[in-house]
Amino acid sequence: MTAPAADDGAAAVADVVARYRPAVERGLREAVDAAPPGFGALVREHFGWDDDAAASSGKLLRPVMCLLVAEALGGDAEPAPPAAVAVELVHNFSLIHDDIEDQSDTRHGRPTLWRTAGLPLALNAGDGLFALARRTLLNLALPPERVLLAVRLLDDACIALCEGQHLDLTFEARRSITLAEYEAMVAGKTAALLGAAMALGALAAGADAAAVEAMHACGRELGMAFQVQDDVLGIWGEAADTGKPVADDIRARKKSFPVVWAREHASPDAAARLAALYATPPDDAAVADILAILERAGARDAAATAARAWADRAFARLAGVRLVAQREAELRKIASYFVTRRS
Amino acid sequence: MTAPAADDGAAAVADVVARYRPAVERGLREAVDAAPPGFGALVREHFGWDDDAAASSGKLLRPVMCLLVAEALGGDAEPAPPAAVAVELVHNFSLIHDDIEDQSDTRHGRPTLWRTAGLPLALNAGDGLFALARRTLLNLALPPERVLLAVRLLDDACIALCEGQHLDLTFEARRSITLAEYEAMVAGKTAALLGAAMALGALAAGADAAAVEAMHACGRELGMAFQVQDDVLGIWGEAADTGKPVADDIRARKKSFPVVWAREHASPDAAARLAALYATPPDDAAVADILAILERAGARDAAATAARAWADRAFARLAGVRLVAQREAELRKIASYFVTRRS
Repeated sequence: MTAPAADDGAAAVADVVARYRPAVERGLREAVDAAPPGFGALVREHFGWDDDAAASSGKLLRPVMCLLVAEALGGDAEPAPPAAVAVELVHNFSLIHDDIEDQSDTRHGRPTLWRTAGLPLALNAGDGLFALARRTLLNLALPPERVLLAVRLLDDACIALCEGQHLDLTFEARRSITLAEYEAMVAGKTAALLGAAMALGALAAGADAAAVEAMHACGRELGMAFQVQDDVLGIWGEAADTGKPVADDIRARKKSFPVVWAREHASPDAAARLAALYATPPDDAAVADILAILERAGARDAAATAARAWADRAFARLAGVRLVAQREAELRKIASYFVTRRS
Repeated sequence: MTAPAADDGAAAVADVVARYRPAVERGLREAVDAAPPGFGALVREHFGWDDDAAASSGKLLRPVMCLLVAEALGGDAEPAPPAAVAVELVHNFSLIHDDIEDQSDTRHGRPTLWRTAGLPLALNAGDGLFALARRTLLNLALPPERVLLAVRLLDDACIALCEGQHLDLTFEARRSITLAEYEAMVAGKTAALLGAAMALGALAAGADAAAVEAMHACGRELGMAFQVQDDVLGIWGEAADTGKPVADDIRARKKSFPVVWAREHASPDAAARLAALYATPPDDAAVADILAILERAGARDAAATAARAWADRAFARLAGVRLVAQREAELRKIASYFVTRRS
């Protein structure tokens, strides 16, 4: 297999995230403070803000990419924060609802909102957060026609996000899916919102339509790369890095990239054996068998290659876009981190 | 008690609804046709469009009021349909989620979406419909700054709607609520979206800011009137008219207007007896006792009076607004119907 450099650029990425984190967190709190007190309190509970021990807000990759793109384009990045905040609020609305749909008990080591507040109030708080996210975008200090472009970008991403989630939920009940189906699902569930985050950063910075569309495409490709690496970590990630048991996605019989790829590309015998092993919840011996089939078929290398190819295509999209050199270097470091990260 | 005229104006209202129904239904179908195929199919299932026996789309009061207001203002009502459709889509997103939150098995005589598609897919289809509703509003053929005003109006109404639903859900777990709390809940859950519907109609017709705000306030007051009459029908409506058992809301121990009013205004003895009877699910004898307490306290008259007062205040808001005479007469007929209807 191909061994990527250990957490290539992780420290550099942490520096970039740290630079934008205060502005993003301040914006998130201001947006949620503007919510009515009822569902607003539940949104705060979801973020863990009232819990001193857990006052982290996740990785904030989407809003950080939005703000970094705005600066990379060399224009005025001042108007970008409401867009970054809106995207992160949409992401969190989807987490609240996903946790209900998946019946997840914990997230980031804390009980999920539906477990603490009950399903009805948590579902409704997710709806409120969704509305609030879109309302926040209207705070963009841009000419009306550009704010409207931003609203359209975010709405289209939300529609794609819901379709991706629909596909993901329906895939659970199916014996197998094709790689094309997998890609269509990830294009909605993961890539659409990262694409919108980067396009909104460009829009907020006053970029022209070509640059906005280039960043949109770049973000969508990076989202695909990010998800495939997520799938690799879900199977081969170290528990100490990811905080999840080894081969967690295999035990959950997830139809993630390596498995879907192997079903299409392994020898007929291996593919049939993989399908049989995936038909019922696997015990430890079956998990070991599945891992061996994936390794022998080259699924791990194929996933790493696919992730890198998506990251490369992402930057090819930016060929005609003038970028501030230092910020472009940071964008490339983050893209590299997306496909080599260990957690 | 005060006996309202039998279904005052019901036929006239039916004529108005019939005039706008084709445009609204066409717009709804076009909007949903623009959705991705996955969750889009579930939205169609919610509307019952694939079921020939049940191809009705509900009362369509909100979109009808939007279009009627646009015509009443005498401007160009051509741009209004996307606003009317967006409001009706928001209403339907909330129905899909309310049915999950209330664990309702049927709506309009058909199984609810979460019962047929399962909770996860239905929840997600509601999210998709919510995003689609807002996206539809962007089809308004108006100058960008007016479209932005429309987006803001709808987003604010959605936030209020979610807060109203939050309050309604939390009220279920409480022994009693005040009339002020009841009004705050209805202001969100029912009034905000009707207010937005009428304000959007004015905005689409090119009305000035004062007329838009007058219609917004008028619609909110009418929404209050509508809900109080809904509460009256939930207790005293005839099963043949409403399609629900007599005293249905009493059996469900709903904290609707007459009950909340009686708890505040009945004699201390009667209020205490009412509280005691509401503490556990009432049998037939207890339902009869509760109905007697409400009648003796004057709760039914008080509700009728409150509904009429809200309807009167609604039209007082329009004092400075020039309206086309025939359309204004129709608006008044619908308002009258809101507070005298039997179903």
